[in-house]
Amino acid sequence: MSAPVTIEISARDGEARAGTLRTPHGAVQTPTFMPVGTKATVKGLTPGDLRTIGAGIVLGNTYHLYLRPGSDLVQEAGGLHAFSGWEGPMLTDSGGYQVFSLAKTRRISENGVEFTSVYDGSVHAFTSELTTRVQEDLGADVAMVLDECPPAGADQQYHAESLRRTARWAERCKAAHGKRDQALFGIVQGGLFADLRRESLERTVAIGFDGYAVGGLSVGESREEMLETLEVVAPELPPEKPRYFMGIGDPVGILQVIALGVDMFDCVLPTRLARHGAALTAEGRLNLRNARFRRDLGRLDPECGCEACTDYSRAYLAHLVREDEILGHRLITLHNVYFMTDLCRRARGAITGGRYDEWSRAWISRYMGEQVPARPV
Amino acid sequence: MSAPVTIEISARDGEARAGTLRTPHGAVQTPTFMPVGTKATVKGLTPGDLRTIGAGIVLGNTYHLYLRPGSDLVQEAGGLHAFSGWEGPMLTDSGGYQVFSLAKTRRISENGVEFTSVYDGSVHAFTSELTTRVQEDLGADVAMVLDECPPAGADQQYHAESLRRTARWAERCKAAHGKRDQALFGIVQGGLFADLRRESLERTVAIGFDGYAVGGLSVGESREEMLETLEVVAPELPPEKPRYFMGIGDPVGILQVIALGVDMFDCVLPTRLARHGAALTAEGRLNLRNARFRRDLGRLDPECGCEACTDYSRAYLAHLVREDEILGHRLITLHNVYFMTDLCRRARGAITGGRYDEWSRAWISRYMGEQVPARPV
Repeated sequence: MSAPVTIEISARDGEARAGTLRTPHGAVQTPTFMPVGTKATVKGLTPGDLRTIGAGIVLGNTYHLYLRPGSDLVQEAGGLHAFSGWEGPMLTDSGGYQVFSLAKTRRISENGVEFTSVYDGSVHAFTSELTTRVQEDLGADVAMVLDECPPAGADQQYHAESLRRTARWAERCKAAHGKRDQALFGIVQGGLFADLRRESLERTVAIGFDGYAVGGLSVGESREEMLETLEVVAPELPPEKPRYFMGIGDPVGILQVIALGVDMFDCVLPTRLARHGAALTAEGRLNLRNARFRRDLGRLDPECGCEACTDYSRAYLAHLVREDEILGHRLITLHNVYFMTDLCRRARGAITGGRYDEWSRAWISRYMGEQVPARPV
Repeated sequence: MSAPVTIEISARDGEARAGTLRTPHGAVQTPTFMPVGTKATVKGLTPGDLRTIGAGIVLGNTYHLYLRPGSDLVQEAGGLHAFSGWEGPMLTDSGGYQVFSLAKTRRISENGVEFTSVYDGSVHAFTSELTTRVQEDLGADVAMVLDECPPAGADQQYHAESLRRTARWAERCKAAHGKRDQALFGIVQGGLFADLRRESLERTVAIGFDGYAVGGLSVGESREEMLETLEVVAPELPPEKPRYFMGIGDPVGILQVIALGVDMFDCVLPTRLARHGAALTAEGRLNLRNARFRRDLGRLDPECGCEACTDYSRAYLAHLVREDEILGHRLITLHNVYFMTDLCRRARGAITGGRYDEWSRAWISRYMGEQVPARPV
């Protein structure tokens, strides 16, 4: 039986890869930015908007959907695709990350993690078996294993024990997973410790998954530390499987992880920034609350082809943002997701053309302006 | 020189009229519901959405736009059409209503009204000349004269003095108005006093405007009182001019004022209700926060052709509303504006077919269910 989700690499440039990810709900060109639809909606956008943008994979959060509206209801509605109206590829996380980052109290044991709901304080427990079943109910194209993303400042001993427990959870997830048209991805942890990262990678690959994620990075460490750690892991990941870097969404960081061979990444940053009135543009991040945009009748990003950039002025968008108008959130979100999607398309072109290094350096230098990136690509 | 905005009545059924309103930015079939775009946006919707819905005239609020972002900026951007991207017909009010309903302090004199901004407490004054110039800067197809909508409980003496001052303001507005591609409408006041309404009507018609509005109703009086007062005014309005009932947006009320010969009406109700999660349907108003919709996989309004009704379930929309998701506000707003627009199309069809009375009675009875309307049409 062939895997439900596969990647075909069509070009390599250094470590960077351009490919096609095939899923039960369609193919996606990689590298690809996955917009986050936490609660079965990419905030403010319809599936039609996402299609127009050319978005590839939409991410859903198991933690939130399990609690609200309930994965049983989503399953009854025909799964997350039918429920939300997005018929393209989807990925759900295991919910573990939200348990560790959102829950006021939580208790980890060999069996899983007990936590209180951020909504109403009710007590729940995620086990490997439960998050696997919940993700099967949600029915995304890709499900993730339950893992622990250890707290900032955890020591080597903690990381070692945590990654071994995560590997045992991953094994149980694989055993519990029975949905044939859904892929299951493993997750490599190990903090910033190179030997622990190697151990986690070996354990995870030994179990065998349809794809591999790198977790526990972009969580507060320096960019240099993040990239050094990724450099340890990425070259050892099975080259024939998709590679997913969890939780990176700043344009520079994305170009940097693409350079190291990552195919997929997600982050709430572009959509969250939008709701705070910040737009990503070829010349850097613009805060539309800034006084200089009040009377600026130019286009938001003159090089962008999205609806927000072609139909409105900066002054109009700045007015909407200042007045906290829903349309402002909607249009800036549309723009930021378009921007990230378009950035990935350009990166892909540069990889295919064998000029990724040159192109990404020039892109970053223009985006950062006077600033100096943590390190060149 | 022909008037910039004209109406051609194509069918009458009793007092009800079906017609075509011609404006510099296109023609609109009447009766027509005008969605309110307070701050240069119908909350959550793009001009493209409004075109898809088939919306006719969009209303802008001079009070808000004068203060934020400033009518000088809107003028510099090419007017409200260019600024907001809506290229169809628009109407602006004079700002008077908001001064009287929103400002914490205000002082009326023969010259106009002085008030403090709801945004920052700064002091401003609206005179006939200023609101006319501001509306010329905004550049809508229809501008309104400055009027006073007296406070609830004002006595006959107050109303008499107020309507005479409003008539003097109207005269000054007409003298100040010089924009040839913009119509100016007069406003009939007079509270619930039939003789004062007649006096206001005579004074306003004597000045001569491109259209006439009935103001100061639907402001707290009973529906019976509102309709009785409108019955005094409507038959005396010049039949060859458009008739605008200010501030009514409940479906039953709209059908009742259409029966009395009104062509245009506006209200924030359908869009405001949407932001509170309430949808208008053929079977009445549905509050999507109600527990019974949580697991309801049916369509919002099975008879409606809007995107919210064809692409999503009640359960999904209820989930969005409960989670206060932007997309929920957007989709319910889209639906409610579509609903009102479609209701007007149906009313027009019934008038043209000579069966308005029968049709509207049946429609209201189904919409109200067990409830009894204040009075039949």
